[in-house]
Amino acid sequence: MRMHVADARPLSRSAVADFFDVVLGQRAYRALRPDPVPEDVISLILEAATHAPSAENRQPWAFVVVKDPEVRQSIATLTARAWINGGRSHSRPNLTPALLEEIDHWATAGLAAAPVHIVVCGDTRVAPEALLPSSIYPAVQNVLLAALASGLGSLLSTLPVFAGPAFRRLLGLPDEVIPMALVPVGFPAKPLGLGRRIPVAAKTHRDRWGTAW
Amino acid sequence: MRMHVADARPLSRSAVADFFDVVLGQRAYRALRPDPVPEDVISLILEAATHAPSAENRQPWAFVVVKDPEVRQSIATLTARAWINGGRSHSRPNLTPALLEEIDHWATAGLAAAPVHIVVCGDTRVAPEALLPSSIYPAVQNVLLAALASGLGSLLSTLPVFAGPAFRRLLGLPDEVIPMALVPVGFPAKPLGLGRRIPVAAKTHRDRWGTAW
Repeated sequence: MRMHVADARPLSRSAVADFFDVVLGQRAYRALRPDPVPEDVISLILEAATHAPSAENRQPWAFVVVKDPEVRQSIATLTARAWINGGRSHSRPNLTPALLEEIDHWATAGLAAAPVHIVVCGDTRVAPEALLPSSIYPAVQNVLLAALASGLGSLLSTLPVFAGPAFRRLLGLPDEVIPMALVPVGFPAKPLGLGRRIPVAAKTHRDRWGTAW
Repeated sequence: MRMHVADARPLSRSAVADFFDVVLGQRAYRALRPDPVPEDVISLILEAATHAPSAENRQPWAFVVVKDPEVRQSIATLTARAWINGGRSHSRPNLTPALLEEIDHWATAGLAAAPVHIVVCGDTRVAPEALLPSSIYPAVQNVLLAALASGLGSLLSTLPVFAGPAFRRLLGLPDEVIPMALVPVGFPAKPLGLGRRIPVAAKTHRDRWGTAW
């Protein structure tokens, strides 16, 4: 089933969203409508996250689902600060002016307007820090895909990683818990077309590096 | 569509694999049949990988698809060595005896028998090393899910990360390219049921850490 996000509605689990349409249609949705997202949809997205693989099946993830407008505004303020104080100058040479402007707008206004912020953390009491990235980012990808399959837009931001201790204090995270991704979720303000990607053949080698696939 | 892996056949992209059945049904398939996997299915799996998000859309992934039996045997030998020399004693306290035996068998025999090894690398010439985990493991998760949606089994192993320079030499990787995941792919030797997971409610907080979702 090809999704039409302009009139997207959350799908129940029994509805059929075609796997490859979801995966090949993934985009970063920076403009989201403020309309609320049903809680059972959020729970389904998190259930999808928990079925990702993790080292020794330790499941070291933890989720903070932020709906409170004041907390979302504080997250957005910290994220904007991390963007303006560091990320922006670092990223500027690599982005087109149009994309830079889009991210500027997201960091300073769009993020706070997203009705749900899902903060995905790794818990070093459950798995050692060295094993967290390979155990957390697959679950984050499930969050992104499950949101899309439910008619929602989202994106993956690691800016909170760079937002420092103020971010941890804001959410009251224990010292052993590391925020690793911020995923704002909501209904898309506008549909997005397919993303452009470097072709598989340019990224793939056969048997050894340097032999064409 | 619920998948029946016992008589699984690769699906073409036009076939419908239900998104949530795929995601909620993910398992680590350690026992794979040696039967060959069609190359167009591998290409579709890699296309899915390239649609994952990455920092600044830099797409710092690179794939080495190993079908050559000698290279696969060498990968398996290095992986078994990393497992026996370090991973095993590290993991033993955290695994049931049955799972430990299953992983023992995988490292010493099962891996070499898998007909395709997909090695997912991060290229530090394309993105700085600090940005690689959040840009590579979502793509790895797409590889795993797309394999499952195509009727194939797979798993995520980071053991090659610990296999040292011999692994890099074997595949002829440039110094700037870091192997980050090994994903053996093939038709499942037997179907697996649903995975057990800690419930979402036990992993999720509302607005701030410590408030029940």
